[in-house]
Amino acid sequence: VCNLYFYTMVTVALLPIGDELLSGSVTDTNSAWIANKLFLEGIPVQRKLCVGDNLNAILEAIEENFRQSDIIIMTGGLGPTKDDVSKQALSIWSDSPLMRDEATFKQLQHYMQSRGRKVNELNASQAEVPKAARVLPNKNGTAPGMWFEKDGKILISLPGVPYEMKALMEEQVLPLLKQKFSGIKIWEETLRVSGIPESELALLLTPLENELPPELTIAYLPEPGQVKVKFRIAARLEHSENAILLLQDWASRAEARIGSDVYGRNEDTLESVVINMLKKDGKTLSLAESCTGGNLGGRLVQVSGASEIFSGGVIAYSNEVKSGVLGVNPEIIQKYGAVSESVACAMAKGVRKLTGSDYGISITGIAGPGGGSFEKPVGTVWIGLSTKDDLCAFPFLFEQSRERNIIRACLAALSVLRKKHLGFLGKPVN
Amino acid sequence: VCNLYFYTMVTVALLPIGDELLSGSVTDTNSAWIANKLFLEGIPVQRKLCVGDNLNAILEAIEENFRQSDIIIMTGGLGPTKDDVSKQALSIWSDSPLMRDEATFKQLQHYMQSRGRKVNELNASQAEVPKAARVLPNKNGTAPGMWFEKDGKILISLPGVPYEMKALMEEQVLPLLKQKFSGIKIWEETLRVSGIPESELALLLTPLENELPPELTIAYLPEPGQVKVKFRIAARLEHSENAILLLQDWASRAEARIGSDVYGRNEDTLESVVINMLKKDGKTLSLAESCTGGNLGGRLVQVSGASEIFSGGVIAYSNEVKSGVLGVNPEIIQKYGAVSESVACAMAKGVRKLTGSDYGISITGIAGPGGGSFEKPVGTVWIGLSTKDDLCAFPFLFEQSRERNIIRACLAALSVLRKKHLGFLGKPVN
Repeated sequence: VCNLYFYTMVTVALLPIGDELLSGSVTDTNSAWIANKLFLEGIPVQRKLCVGDNLNAILEAIEENFRQSDIIIMTGGLGPTKDDVSKQALSIWSDSPLMRDEATFKQLQHYMQSRGRKVNELNASQAEVPKAARVLPNKNGTAPGMWFEKDGKILISLPGVPYEMKALMEEQVLPLLKQKFSGIKIWEETLRVSGIPESELALLLTPLENELPPELTIAYLPEPGQVKVKFRIAARLEHSENAILLLQDWASRAEARIGSDVYGRNEDTLESVVINMLKKDGKTLSLAESCTGGNLGGRLVQVSGASEIFSGGVIAYSNEVKSGVLGVNPEIIQKYGAVSESVACAMAKGVRKLTGSDYGISITGIAGPGGGSFEKPVGTVWIGLSTKDDLCAFPFLFEQSRERNIIRACLAALSVLRKKHLGFLGKPVN
Repeated sequence: VCNLYFYTMVTVALLPIGDELLSGSVTDTNSAWIANKLFLEGIPVQRKLCVGDNLNAILEAIEENFRQSDIIIMTGGLGPTKDDVSKQALSIWSDSPLMRDEATFKQLQHYMQSRGRKVNELNASQAEVPKAARVLPNKNGTAPGMWFEKDGKILISLPGVPYEMKALMEEQVLPLLKQKFSGIKIWEETLRVSGIPESELALLLTPLENELPPELTIAYLPEPGQVKVKFRIAARLEHSENAILLLQDWASRAEARIGSDVYGRNEDTLESVVINMLKKDGKTLSLAESCTGGNLGGRLVQVSGASEIFSGGVIAYSNEVKSGVLGVNPEIIQKYGAVSESVACAMAKGVRKLTGSDYGISITGIAGPGGGSFEKPVGTVWIGLSTKDDLCAFPFLFEQSRERNIIRACLAALSVLRKKHLGFLGKPVN
């Protein structure tokens, strides 16, 4: 729950516009981006209403939104083609005619010239805005933003192209809004947790939730293989220091209750945490991936600088590669199956020796949908770990979805490595 | 734009629920997915309204949506934690108390047991539904879907977890809706194109677009490294045969104009196309990945059945692995650099010999942000290909973004393999 809403003076409604959003051809990513920017400034978004490129629908949506909110941020529908009618709607709503804005027209000419194009009848209309609008110049495109004030309400219209919209928001709209409605800000502290399901985590934190001071809220955001636990507090700027201390104190109490399953904070990912941990201690890592087919390596190299600790490894998808490249004894595969403790250990050891890395990590499992049996159902995964002094493997049982099993196997492998390196894991009990 | 909306009798409002959507922590991808599925059945989405986890806001949103639409599809807010109040809202709206549904409870017990967990107080509440609801069993999770009918309106509530929601929509909701509201349908035919930028593609198809019959529309949806070209037609069921012929005729004309860059249709991916092509011809593939770090292997194994053609390979992220495991001569790396034609060829040959596969494919490049130079800027990638009779490599220059360079390198490698196998590529001209 989020009682934060009641702390602030104004509320915002988002109004994304476009037939392509209603037909599902395009996913609306603008709304989440705008909402988050406003949220962190303590200006909460109360609702999002999306309608098509239709004059009446837009006018009704404006009216409906203003019944609940003080500010509307409208995106899209500002293109030069006939199907875009947002500007017409704004002209009707603000009761002011469309007129050419000379500064915008000059900028349009400049924009077109710099691209070797000319201003034609169609794009010249881009320089027309309702007379009542304050123009927000758009340096990245041809449709300017617009700011209206009427009857104590504010309506902001922005182009739908994400990078034009983002520049206008950051450089013009947010500063103006902060100037008008400053005072309150929201801080967040996120615990990143892997290795415990959401419902158990919530149960574990229930006593703590019951003691939580009312200005603090907690939210659980589950993803495959991990959960984000978000603590939030809203406070006036002059009280920010105490608010932040309170926030971090409670986040730390929660971390102490959860224990070693908390792998990081805020923007940390399990990949970045593991990479930084190994970097710090001067250790290197190689991988032997079977059912994940390279996904774990692929995840690691998304992090810039992974090369300092990650030498590479072997995608041992077939048994031939397990034996031929990693040196796993074919008789062991025959006897225990490719998804087994023995094979996971042999793979991890094999890749460590092959690459000369400090850690060798292996993943072998049944991702599904085929390949499951009564003893080893779909979702069975063994993670192996080899160092100079140690060799062990850990079993997991995930779920039916191939896609999610692959993600969860990658995260489990990183989790095993992290816990082992930090001394949280002994040898598995046999 | 799309007048398709006017063909149908009923309209839908989407109602995604969640504080995390309003704070922008999570991007709402469910709405676009649902909208597209409904769109293709000729059931148009008229509006999307998103509100937070707040009882009054949800009740008001239901009322507001039903003023405009006949059907509401609500997603999210069904979790076991206290902040989720959608079910309470539905109980109030349908004027019926929450009661345990025995079939759901049994399934919940079974779900928990199969994961070695127990039903606790918190998750037991997942089996409670308003008495007026028709339960839509959720085999992938603990929160069931619900179907309500009241005063001629339909309200459908689904969990917010994407893969649970998708299975419920496809297996239960869509069949029920189609049964109730059939008549008009929209058909799509999508060309999947890789190797030509969107603007050139649009220019190439302009003559064809100008001749397009008015009932057909065309849309370009670009993604990193590829473009989807969507043809659409709406028709009554009794005219469907002619509509489909017309659609496919124009899609084929477009395909003939574009040529070998069209790699597939509709749900095809470059991964699935390449896997099926090799499967059909009984060929196998292995990979030597440097800058992509396993991402290409990771993409291939997302396709169930990849094991029939994919044996695995080597993640040769460091030069030591390139030499030590793949047998690339260190002097060649020294002389030409790791990102070079010679090294790409040696990697491809090395992995093919190591695994005994028919094709060896290598990727070596500078993903960025670091590592670029004047001669080899960030985005430079070499793709190598080795067969028993052939050894060659192809250069690419992508962009600044590490993330996009990795994706584009993977798709380029698949594209090279596909074109080579089909005889579209000769040896590169040197």
